[in-house]
Amino acid sequence: MSAAACIFCKIIKGDIPSFKLFESDKVFAFLDIQPLSRGHALVIPKYHGEKLTDIPDEHLLEILPVAKKVAQATGAVDFNILQNNGRIAHQVVDHVHFHMIPKPNEKEGMSIGWPSQETDMDKLKALYEDIKSKM
Amino acid sequence: MSAAACIFCKIIKGDIPSFKLFESDKVFAFLDIQPLSRGHALVIPKYHGEKLTDIPDEHLLEILPVAKKVAQATGAVDFNILQNNGRIAHQVVDHVHFHMIPKPNEKEGMSIGWPSQETDMDKLKALYEDIKSKM
Repeated sequence: MSAAACIFCKIIKGDIPSFKLFESDKVFAFLDIQPLSRGHALVIPKYHGEKLTDIPDEHLLEILPVAKKVAQATGAVDFNILQNNGRIAHQVVDHVHFHMIPKPNEKEGMSIGWPSQETDMDKLKALYEDIKSKM
Repeated sequence: MSAAACIFCKIIKGDIPSFKLFESDKVFAFLDIQPLSRGHALVIPKYHGEKLTDIPDEHLLEILPVAKKVAQATGAVDFNILQNNGRIAHQVVDHVHFHMIPKPNEKEGMSIGWPSQETDMDKLKALYEDIKSKM
């Protein structure tokens, strides 16, 4: 999707109103209007890119300090930071966004399924050599 | 938990071996040995802190650029970045860690439950004023 058609780019520009919590040269934060829990917020780079791998490093530096600041302002004790890349990974809007989702109780906030695989140390070692060679 | 007893601090120090992918002054990245999918990795600040809100900003800046670099090296197309704060939010090790979890198919990788709440714009507006005043 182009930046011109992007709902988050429109929010950044102010063409669509939002509950803005923070704005700097590179980062924008606002409340999610379909929250999973009280204080659910989004922190996004102003730079338009679909996936984390599309965003230049300089536009990523400030994201986590802002997410931290937002978490502190909501008073959340327990919470999740989540950023999804791709439809199958639960991404809905094609502009990189980090959710800060308070987890006040079992019912509210996100829930996580964790299907651990059997650990085959030989396979993991081979995979490691492969990935390490590409770092 | 103190840093002395922390398993991730021991991994950083090299007292426990790991499949290390990256190391700098402030950040350490390694393969998760109980992966949810091929390439599942962890990116952590060397600074010991339990929750995101415990980590000074300067120790957070490099985290996402490294997570991006790791995602690229694994070749993952679709993936999730996840950081959990608190037992109820699925945190198991009490040293801040960011998961990079490839999502190659429906079965592998993490699954996400998303119990959206009814949006009450008046309540959201009041909440917004409250949080904004604390930013």
